[in-house]
Amino acid sequence: MAHEWQTKISRVMDGKVIIRGYSHEKLIGDYSYAEGVFLTLRGSLPTKAEARMTDAMLNSLLDHGFVAASVLAARYAASGNPQLVPGTAAGLLTAGSNTISPQHSAEFLERAVKQMRDEKLSLEETAKKVVAQVRAERRRIPGLGHPTHKGDDFRAVKLRAIAAECGFVGDKVRMFEAIHAEFLRSTGKQGICINVDGMLGALMSEMGFRPLQMAAVALLAVLPGIMAHVIEEIEEGKPLRIVRDEDCDYLGEPERPFP
Amino acid sequence: MAHEWQTKISRVMDGKVIIRGYSHEKLIGDYSYAEGVFLTLRGSLPTKAEARMTDAMLNSLLDHGFVAASVLAARYAASGNPQLVPGTAAGLLTAGSNTISPQHSAEFLERAVKQMRDEKLSLEETAKKVVAQVRAERRRIPGLGHPTHKGDDFRAVKLRAIAAECGFVGDKVRMFEAIHAEFLRSTGKQGICINVDGMLGALMSEMGFRPLQMAAVALLAVLPGIMAHVIEEIEEGKPLRIVRDEDCDYLGEPERPFP
Amino acid sequence: MAHEWQTKISRVMDGKVIIRGYSHEKLIGDYSYAEGVFLTLRGSLPTKAEARMTDAMLNSLLDHGFVAASVLAARYAASGNPQLVPGTAAGLLTAGSNTISPQHSAEFLERAVKQMRDEKLSLEETAKKVVAQVRAERRRIPGLGHPTHKGDDFRAVKLRAIAAECGFVGDKVRMFEAIHAEFLRSTGKQGICINVDGMLGALMSEMGFRPLQMAAVALLAVLPGIMAHVIEEIEEGKPLRIVRDEDCDYLGEPERPFP
Amino acid sequence: MAHEWQTKISRVMDGKVIIRGYSHEKLIGDYSYAEGVFLTLRGSLPTKAEARMTDAMLNSLLDHGFVAASVLAARYAASGNPQLVPGTAAGLLTAGSNTISPQHSAEFLERAVKQMRDEKLSLEETAKKVVAQVRAERRRIPGLGHPTHKGDDFRAVKLRAIAAECGFVGDKVRMFEAIHAEFLRSTGKQGICINVDGMLGALMSEMGFRPLQMAAVALLAVLPGIMAHVIEEIEEGKPLRIVRDEDCDYLGEPERPFP
Repeated sequence: MAHEWQTKISRVMDGKVIIRGYSHEKLIGDYSYAEGVFLTLRGSLPTKAEARMTDAMLNSLLDHGFVAASVLAARYAASGNPQLVPGTAAGLLTAGSNTISPQHSAEFLERAVKQMRDEKLSLEETAKKVVAQVRAERRRIPGLGHPTHKGDDFRAVKLRAIAAECGFVGDKVRMFEAIHAEFLRSTGKQGICINVDGMLGALMSEMGFRPLQMAAVALLAVLPGIMAHVIEEIEEGKPLRIVRDEDCDYLGEPERPFP
Repeated sequence: MAHEWQTKISRVMDGKVIIRGYSHEKLIGDYSYAEGVFLTLRGSLPTKAEARMTDAMLNSLLDHGFVAASVLAARYAASGNPQLVPGTAAGLLTAGSNTISPQHSAEFLERAVKQMRDEKLSLEETAKKVVAQVRAERRRIPGLGHPTHKGDDFRAVKLRAIAAECGFVGDKVRMFEAIHAEFLRSTGKQGICINVDGMLGALMSEMGFRPLQMAAVALLAVLPGIMAHVIEEIEEGKPLRIVRDEDCDYLGEPERPFP
Repeated sequence: MAHEWQTKISRVMDGKVIIRGYSHEKLIGDYSYAEGVFLTLRGSLPTKAEARMTDAMLNSLLDHGFVAASVLAARYAASGNPQLVPGTAAGLLTAGSNTISPQHSAEFLERAVKQMRDEKLSLEETAKKVVAQVRAERRRIPGLGHPTHKGDDFRAVKLRAIAAECGFVGDKVRMFEAIHAEFLRSTGKQGICINVDGMLGALMSEMGFRPLQMAAVALLAVLPGIMAHVIEEIEEGKPLRIVRDEDCDYLGEPERPFP
Repeated sequence: MAHEWQTKISRVMDGKVIIRGYSHEKLIGDYSYAEGVFLTLRGSLPTKAEARMTDAMLNSLLDHGFVAASVLAARYAASGNPQLVPGTAAGLLTAGSNTISPQHSAEFLERAVKQMRDEKLSLEETAKKVVAQVRAERRRIPGLGHPTHKGDDFRAVKLRAIAAECGFVGDKVRMFEAIHAEFLRSTGKQGICINVDGMLGALMSEMGFRPLQMAAVALLAVLPGIMAHVIEEIEEGKPLRIVRDEDCDYLGEPERPFP
């Protein structure tokens, strides 16, 4: 009878582990972490270009200080409970529909590229249709805009340059750029960049990552900063951070008698 | 052979569950949540006095707005990941040595009461020794002081009054009051109250809670507010809260060239 | 200028807190935790019937032993990291689309009741349409079935009886029962009950809870058991629980040479 | 006046971020993730040897299947709440005093080396004293023993070999080996290895990591496997995993009447 637990990821034996079919022993030291991550998540070893691109992506979110909700959640948690693991978990739990989720851009772009093919449109025609529809529905385009980086998001730009060298600039990246251009043109807005989350989604889509695998890479990419901040909070922060009552607004019911 | 999992908490059968020996069915509706919590954690049904005291303690931390690191961690997490469960977990993870941990006061008071008995001292003599030692070691007395409530912490005062009615004012509570008085006298400080965390620890110690059980009651007591704030953040908050770079101080290395 | 943080939940002042307009001080001891939870989450004090129903619901998930993924997640976490807060958080994080989420049943029933009204159908006609559609789409009906309780889920039955006394049996509950009956009739299945999650959703819908508020009540209801199990794991469990390699199945790639 | 938030980790500006003084832009693509992690956590760029050793350590815990409490916590959580972030957080929260904490071995070895120097002992004399004391106090030696790897833990052996090449075999590693040998000799036990957690602690101590920094590296090292398992659980696992009531032992109170 089958056991309760089954996996295709690794086989553990006395004195040996194989990961996706490869000896774990050899992976230690002979392969980079970027290659180990790719293998563990995707199931096969990366090519040289995939390994280089993955390593660059893993370094693309190293830290963004307090301009990151995840760091603030992590440091508030650590100011009450000064330990690495709970603070780091609080930071991680901040990753969701509004941040650290390249998969949303990827899914958006994959739908646009599918529409282009299904309807036999050009990039520009598709971008026009997509932007018009998003604006009509008053939705956001995932992966556009950043609170600090108004011109370019240098992380997106650098990743795009590496992707060009590695051969990962394809339909999704070009669609993103066409949609971005059309968005700026049609709205007349300025200071709206393709942000790093969006570029990560586009590139991982080009590389064949599935949405959950994309999210996993993004989590690894933000963790060095989250953990450095938790450690800094424990070692140099305040024992219990609060916001003083005079610095908040109460907008609720005025005091009332009990019934 | 024994199974992997063993428990003394509940027995689950087709159509029936017993919790600590009692029919779960009857607990629903015929007993209050305070009684259900007491039974599940402690292993026996509470007396009337224990039930009333537990219910009061569970209501003693309902919400404290932004003057609580847990609420801030929870809301930052929810602003990135607008879901109830992750935001609530981020809030919970803030409970630790600096907040929401009555067990630290309890353990401090239990040691003081033991010293009083071992050394056959009066309350006042013990308080003098304990405060002198803490001050010599430059440590904090757990359960004293509050950032907002400078005179009294009304929650501690109300719990103390209910405890008097219920018969739970004993050695630990009296020791806490003696230590508090001695601390104010010897330091000449004002505006340092016995806070609610401290009183919860003293009272649960009187009632025979063990430290982990105390912490569990405190977690239930803060959760209504944490969850109400997560819901408010999801429904009325900002999609991604950050602190702008101009509102932070960078104290690290100036920019430097790569080696 | 408005401050960063705004809330309608509580106002904190030196020596005083008001919660949804009511003095926190009076809530401690004069009101039950069920009433405190209702007020904090919903914004108004409950009626007697609402308070009794809420208290019963809070006691309806006290513990369900190892027949609960949340308890298993919590105990595995605590066996590696023997602390209350992280283990409890791991348990909480298990609440989602497959468990501890009454809101899914509520939303399902609200749609069915809306359809009944929009299309001017009887309960039975609506149930037939709804069940036929769900079966055609091979989806599950949220709130039906339980791995242990094959006949009735006694928790659902008891909550339903209390709801009848309190006046909370309305369209949603009756629709659930009609759908359940139609499901059994049309599939010929037996041993599929209305489970406690489903009944909680139906009842909280009758009582005017919004989906996130329903989920919050369910989290409070499972926490006593999760925390009792974390404490038991810390005090009496195994230091590091694993599943031995011979008790798992490896279904992945056979060992292969590196390229 | 100083702002609430201060950091030495990064400075965020419009169009630019510096991390520990270095341009983030250049770190993307020109430096490996191992180097990025080292810089972010430690504050300076690693040497070639430090980078190689860090990369090897990051690959040393890629996955260990179900012979890991963290994977089991993560998969149970994901079976209830099939999302990447909560399941990953549940896995992370398992890291603590019983697993994934190389810092405990490091601190143990650092005390032993200090004792050797203070008391001017040889390695072997120190090992004898340390092992005798641990055995007298019936404590465990952190970093010895593994449930599956009875002979050697191949991950520890491989890391040790790379450390020898990189020049990181010093007092802490040698002390560990002396203590291990003395433990086997004095107890007559076999099948107790130096495990990977222990070797990671010894090596990071040699490299000048502080305890919280060590824990951070270990968390990154286990995450690929935890996340791969969460994804596998979501994509191929069971919707709600439980342990059936007949597969558990109830050791508590027999059913009893209510008072």
